[in-house]
Amino acid sequence: MESEQTGIESQKIIRHRGDGELEYQPDDLTIEEPLEIRIGSKTIATTMRTPGHDEELAIGFLVSEAVIKSREQIRQMSRPDHARNQHNVVRVELSDNAKVTDMPAQRLGTITSSCGICGRESIDAMRERFERIRQSDVRIKREVLLGLPLRMRDRQGEFARTGGIHAAGLFDANGDAKIVREDIGRHNAVDKVIGRAVLDGILPLHRHILLVSGRASFEIVQKALAAGIPVIASVSAPSSLAVSFCRQSNQTLIGFLRPPSFNIYTHVDRVILE
Amino acid sequence: MESEQTGIESQKIIRHRGDGELEYQPDDLTIEEPLEIRIGSKTIATTMRTPGHDEELAIGFLVSEAVIKSREQIRQMSRPDHARNQHNVVRVELSDNAKVTDMPAQRLGTITSSCGICGRESIDAMRERFERIRQSDVRIKREVLLGLPLRMRDRQGEFARTGGIHAAGLFDANGDAKIVREDIGRHNAVDKVIGRAVLDGILPLHRHILLVSGRASFEIVQKALAAGIPVIASVSAPSSLAVSFCRQSNQTLIGFLRPPSFNIYTHVDRVILE
Repeated sequence: MESEQTGIESQKIIRHRGDGELEYQPDDLTIEEPLEIRIGSKTIATTMRTPGHDEELAIGFLVSEAVIKSREQIRQMSRPDHARNQHNVVRVELSDNAKVTDMPAQRLGTITSSCGICGRESIDAMRERFERIRQSDVRIKREVLLGLPLRMRDRQGEFARTGGIHAAGLFDANGDAKIVREDIGRHNAVDKVIGRAVLDGILPLHRHILLVSGRASFEIVQKALAAGIPVIASVSAPSSLAVSFCRQSNQTLIGFLRPPSFNIYTHVDRVILE
Repeated sequence: MESEQTGIESQKIIRHRGDGELEYQPDDLTIEEPLEIRIGSKTIATTMRTPGHDEELAIGFLVSEAVIKSREQIRQMSRPDHARNQHNVVRVELSDNAKVTDMPAQRLGTITSSCGICGRESIDAMRERFERIRQSDVRIKREVLLGLPLRMRDRQGEFARTGGIHAAGLFDANGDAKIVREDIGRHNAVDKVIGRAVLDGILPLHRHILLVSGRASFEIVQKALAAGIPVIASVSAPSSLAVSFCRQSNQTLIGFLRPPSFNIYTHVDRVILE
């Protein structure tokens, strides 16, 4: 489904070429539209996303927020009949054992950059809502790591065409791509990957690697922890908070994965360097 | 203040070099911490930001949300004495003529990617909360446009060192940099620029250009409109929604500004191409 080339639209633009000439040409743009996620009739989040895999996005978000841990906790998903922009709304009905009441009130109605946390203590509390990664779940050869960006790129369609889309990929320890998703938002791409994994019933992802096309910020490594992912690789820079979070959560964090080189920020033991 | 090199911290990391050798070396990381923005005692948003220029960020956010239009509407800003993480909280006291009650309830408590909007109609409504840009406020020579990325880079410190920080710059029609701010979040960098401009008393910015280091998404062009900025240039791709928004709001949108070339997506009339 990565080759479907959905999520883009073409427009006529004016290009000022390097030689100073002007060209009127078609240009592909990544589609950005809001998705409203509801639990029952209550809106819990709205995110600007690239349409496609919306149910996966909703499920991944609920896992990241510690609302659910498995597909069994989802009773039903639908597009509400009476919503004005039906294609931009996903309604989730949870089973009785899903713990919506466990969500701190402040986190309801918010998403990612608006996470209702205001300091280290709260971030610690958030990490403790998820199990710390156990030791030695998986070890990755450096050759496998170095091969990931190209393998993800092979599964992508739009990125090369528009330059405006992020990607996230889930790989096994051999470097085989299991799930690759794209979105204009970094966090949405990760939520879509996690949501697909939930639907496939393969959580926790203790033997997997998450690769992200952008930076590794707090929200990315927190989502990975929610899904049980022990190794996160980013083609760009991690933030200070992502590094300190991964140190505590026992996650291996790789940054600037740009073959033939990369940086290891935390828990080097999961990388086979010989 | 761009040369102060705040907002970064150094850590020891393991670098896998291109020749396969390992190096233990110091590495600069962009600091990411949550900032809670309060109006009075009520938390209206929390954003993951790079510390520094926090008051500007708060003010820029309030302008983007159509809560205030000028510094006269701010009575006082402070770090609450009793907050647990005082350095991560900004409290704003508004004057009586600021229209907090005009904010749709759904938008309170949210920020950027969580904007409580669920479709085109709501986005149209949002655009109409701000004045459409008037015609012919400013015209920019292409040589000026092509010079902006380097001029912004000259004012930046951290980007080159960590690769993990975004920048936004406000320029006049001659290409002179008026304000440049950096942040781990694209939207925060723009809010800081707008907040500084509010404090300087120079809104609306009808004769200015905004340059952003990342993509131009809906939230970026919407913030620019809130500040009255007629020209937005991005070094990367715009989203579909940013393009349709700018078409309606009469904003000129430039993308892939990578000298010697660039793309013009909307309202070419403000670019002098001869």
